[in-house]
Amino acid sequence: MADVKKFTTVEELEADTTKLYERACELCADTWQQRAEAQKNHCKFGEGGICCKNCSMGPCRITPKAPKGICGADAHAIAARNYLRMICAGTSSHSDHAREILHVLHETKPEGPYIVRDEQKLIRLAREWDVAVDNRDIYSIAHEVAEKGLEEFGKSFGEMRFPSRAIESQQAIWRREGIWPRAIDREVVTSLHMTHMGNSADPEALIRQGMRTALSHGWGGSMLGTEITDILFGTPTVWETEGNLGVLENDLVNIVVHGHDPVFSEAIVTAAESKEILDYAKSKNIKGINVVGLCCTANEIAMRHGVRMVGNFLQQENAILTGAVEMMCVDIQCIFPALPQLAQCFHTKFVTSSPIARIPGADYVEFNPSTASEQAKLLVKQAIDNFEYRDTSKVWIPESKQTAVVGYPTEQIIKHLDAITNSHVDEIGSYRPAVDAIKAGVLRGAVAIVGCNNPRVRPDFSHYEIIKTLLKNDILVVATGCAAQLATKTGLMRKEAKFECGAGLRRVCDLMDIPPVLHMGACVDISRMMLLANGIARDWGINLDQIPVVGCAPEWMSEKAVSIANYVVSTGLDVYLGIEPQVNGSSQMMEWITEGTRKLTGGGFIINTDPEQLVKNIIDGIEAKRKALGI
Amino acid sequence: MADVKKFTTVEELEADTTKLYERACELCADTWQQRAEAQKNHCKFGEGGICCKNCSMGPCRITPKAPKGICGADAHAIAARNYLRMICAGTSSHSDHAREILHVLHETKPEGPYIVRDEQKLIRLAREWDVAVDNRDIYSIAHEVAEKGLEEFGKSFGEMRFPSRAIESQQAIWRREGIWPRAIDREVVTSLHMTHMGNSADPEALIRQGMRTALSHGWGGSMLGTEITDILFGTPTVWETEGNLGVLENDLVNIVVHGHDPVFSEAIVTAAESKEILDYAKSKNIKGINVVGLCCTANEIAMRHGVRMVGNFLQQENAILTGAVEMMCVDIQCIFPALPQLAQCFHTKFVTSSPIARIPGADYVEFNPSTASEQAKLLVKQAIDNFEYRDTSKVWIPESKQTAVVGYPTEQIIKHLDAITNSHVDEIGSYRPAVDAIKAGVLRGAVAIVGCNNPRVRPDFSHYEIIKTLLKNDILVVATGCAAQLATKTGLMRKEAKFECGAGLRRVCDLMDIPPVLHMGACVDISRMMLLANGIARDWGINLDQIPVVGCAPEWMSEKAVSIANYVVSTGLDVYLGIEPQVNGSSQMMEWITEGTRKLTGGGFIINTDPEQLVKNIIDGIEAKRKALGI
Repeated sequence: MADVKKFTTVEELEADTTKLYERACELCADTWQQRAEAQKNHCKFGEGGICCKNCSMGPCRITPKAPKGICGADAHAIAARNYLRMICAGTSSHSDHAREILHVLHETKPEGPYIVRDEQKLIRLAREWDVAVDNRDIYSIAHEVAEKGLEEFGKSFGEMRFPSRAIESQQAIWRREGIWPRAIDREVVTSLHMTHMGNSADPEALIRQGMRTALSHGWGGSMLGTEITDILFGTPTVWETEGNLGVLENDLVNIVVHGHDPVFSEAIVTAAESKEILDYAKSKNIKGINVVGLCCTANEIAMRHGVRMVGNFLQQENAILTGAVEMMCVDIQCIFPALPQLAQCFHTKFVTSSPIARIPGADYVEFNPSTASEQAKLLVKQAIDNFEYRDTSKVWIPESKQTAVVGYPTEQIIKHLDAITNSHVDEIGSYRPAVDAIKAGVLRGAVAIVGCNNPRVRPDFSHYEIIKTLLKNDILVVATGCAAQLATKTGLMRKEAKFECGAGLRRVCDLMDIPPVLHMGACVDISRMMLLANGIARDWGINLDQIPVVGCAPEWMSEKAVSIANYVVSTGLDVYLGIEPQVNGSSQMMEWITEGTRKLTGGGFIINTDPEQLVKNIIDGIEAKRKALGI
Repeated sequence: MADVKKFTTVEELEADTTKLYERACELCADTWQQRAEAQKNHCKFGEGGICCKNCSMGPCRITPKAPKGICGADAHAIAARNYLRMICAGTSSHSDHAREILHVLHETKPEGPYIVRDEQKLIRLAREWDVAVDNRDIYSIAHEVAEKGLEEFGKSFGEMRFPSRAIESQQAIWRREGIWPRAIDREVVTSLHMTHMGNSADPEALIRQGMRTALSHGWGGSMLGTEITDILFGTPTVWETEGNLGVLENDLVNIVVHGHDPVFSEAIVTAAESKEILDYAKSKNIKGINVVGLCCTANEIAMRHGVRMVGNFLQQENAILTGAVEMMCVDIQCIFPALPQLAQCFHTKFVTSSPIARIPGADYVEFNPSTASEQAKLLVKQAIDNFEYRDTSKVWIPESKQTAVVGYPTEQIIKHLDAITNSHVDEIGSYRPAVDAIKAGVLRGAVAIVGCNNPRVRPDFSHYEIIKTLLKNDILVVATGCAAQLATKTGLMRKEAKFECGAGLRRVCDLMDIPPVLHMGACVDISRMMLLANGIARDWGINLDQIPVVGCAPEWMSEKAVSIANYVVSTGLDVYLGIEPQVNGSSQMMEWITEGTRKLTGGGFIINTDPEQLVKNIIDGIEAKRKALGI
């Protein structure tokens, strides 16, 4: 282990952040640290979910002296309604993102700018949906598949398709509980109707509708987003890349792409590699263009192009604060409205591209898939032109970066499992070897670590501590989103991270030639994790709530996360949360989310804001599942 | 005027409410008055729209010391997002209601329980939507029309149909501003996406999306609700009915139907009139069954059956407090969750019927259109059986009631106009005579008074004062919802109310044989008002923002009202509000809703919480429009 490059600690990450923060203070720019300080002592009614703004008789707040709103809604009704609305916003976000991707698939043509890159995946999906494929032009298939996909949002009759991918026992649960979703948009609109003044006041009805809506996200919008993105841009494969602020370069034009929808960033990446642009750069005596990703856009393009990752959610201001970013191009979701003002402290151009995410103070270039190449080239040229305005006296790029091996969708995991399968004896394309490893105890189980950062807890610390402890306990980690980026920038996504693992997991890593933390993608790709868990249960022959596989969101922040957590528990898997959902003003709702859902589908929340305790809870939970299985 | 029965004043209404409230206090039941008192001093952040709960980093609240949320969203972004979400919930509610009605149309068959009652309206709509009608079974047409209607919610491509009913100049505005809606559910989901953490922070983008979403409601969900309800249950015609708590009867079985969707209440009304049930009642020595309506369900069935109206929104507890209600059957929207507990203080059975509106403590009978008759009969029998448990010592029914002439959809208004048209000279089926009356100044204009009650203002007082003042000033009033019920219960919907009017309006009432306040339906029927205004502008040959016709919601309360107000201003009409929308923490948003939208579509809000001032503003606004037209 002597020659293994050391891992980056959270303290080291924090040291860089502190330096950049101090620079921000000198420049009088405001950052999340200052704003979080100013917002301290959050409203307890809001935190508890017991403030109701659903009509203008209020707002009403539940207190011992005012136990009901003006209409008579109590703490339980109010908290449940607010909670369902969070699920709606989360479901809407990932799903609306998928809708845009489907429209891009519908516009693909052989001459581009968007083409079908994974024809096999398209054909598999077409077959799944009874779309004719034989003797048919691939683009004709693509367009019909896009139409079928779009039907999932708004079909007038019937119900959604992807939930039938789940193992039969889980499908039976969804049928029994009446939570099989009908259509994504419909579930959202029905939920908003239910939570309108004078409708549902029953937490159970609201929780059930929340599960149905969340399923339309996890086994709908999110899964569509992932599948269609793979078809358009290729199913991810293994890449070695780098992560953290140190991927910004002193002598190159730095372009940061930030957000979630890769349609825009793919065009930027392609443009930056085009001869026209490289020639243009050369003509300006520029050594090169360094496109790097931030937030989930980073995950998308790292897994498909090896593009380097500059940071996760709470590093978005840090990237600009280096003073070395010529342009930040954003698409949708998790983009601080603070960024344009911060960019103005530097030469950085800040460009928004989506009508979904307009931010005052930004340059707005409404991105149009049909003119993607031209728009992207124009932007990259502007970034090149902007290089000369970089004020070197203001530049400070932290050195810290780590290498990482990324790109483990289910297809890639299966490839690694196939490689260790004796094809004469065993079936290939199966999770059976993983199941065997779990049964044998070499692997104790697997945990999906997902989610955001949140200033409510020490940023990235929970991710780091939990991942490291799980690895030591022979528990494989799969990660997406900002959690995956933490693993990237600390080095835990290097194959050498096996030296951080218990002996069993290290052997698995060696045998399969994988790092112990598998990067499965962006937050929209948690659907991949559902298919992974489903595949394990299927190949094991047991129910989803029996497998020693759980989810964990230690630092979640967004409404997307609330919806995700709900589709995961609806799929029978426990979810361990490091941030409390905002329902604790209602004892009934606390009971519902921790125990009630488990009675319906087998999954529920375990909440602990102390990461040390939370990881203990996870390990106990996994061992309890093992014990129940007699392994 | 000597023999005209006097009008009921708000003070008289209040005297009854006070008596009932005192009874509630004696019985220890809690009512809205007590709850409103306990909720006093509403949260200023919530009232100002500057509290953000859209992610779990917060809640964040905007103060001088904390001018931004943790993400950097300022007061304008936060208020705009909250406002758009209100529009979404309102749009979802009426639209989801319409969706259910469309599914009922899809299930109609000649033998019932649900049949097509207005074949001509169905055929007109079929022709409008290019559905074949010639030589075709009416039910086959109905089912195809239902399918086409359902497409408005979730079509993957294209845009909505009903906006093309608007006059061309308004359509051109919607095109120019990019706010022609695509599909109802899609606009809602896109809006939730835009308001998710890290997306839109630009009030203009959010306001525009709000208008587009609201148009999908007004010229979509709401209009579908109205059209299809007319097809199913008949287009309303003129009925003489009665209104106020005095319609409850001491010696009859009183059943109150409450909510908004008439599918359930129609079945109850039909069941209560059936021979089987009348025989059953007789067998129990019951003199009869008195079905009365409350809230918008009342408006729906009053206009189609003359069923009497027991009260509006803030009278829902009063009805139960009379002690004389055997059963209250509710469907959806504006139902106090407080009711089941209150009902338990009496013998009253409280029945919920919709999965959208489950309330703890209620008897739940999930209403199924295919078994509607049996379910309704069973419930009416239960009400009959419950009569013997009425505790006469607890009964007190206020005497107050008024007669009212109701039922003036656009079709009925046209009939009255046709009756005064010289068919040899003038075209019939036109609003031309009304236009001529306005041009001549006999009528100064028309005001649509709509909306709820709200304890923030003296209940019903604003409605009453504004309506009376408008009538005196020769301004015709059309009303829906709880505003219409106020006119009913005070007597202002009697034809004799012409004696409250200026000379010009009185002449119009005489000539057309109408009351000066025309009952156009439930709150979902504000779409009828859009078609009325549109027809006037069309037959006048001017733009919608030019006609001296405006909307007014003096006591609005719900998110539906926020969405309605937005579709009205998007249609070019000013809206006068007596309750301030919750955005006053943002100067930009206040500017947007009062002036900004007017620059886009011609309509905006005028807000005044003093009803005396508000009605002056209305009259000034109408006179200003007249002046601009040179009339």
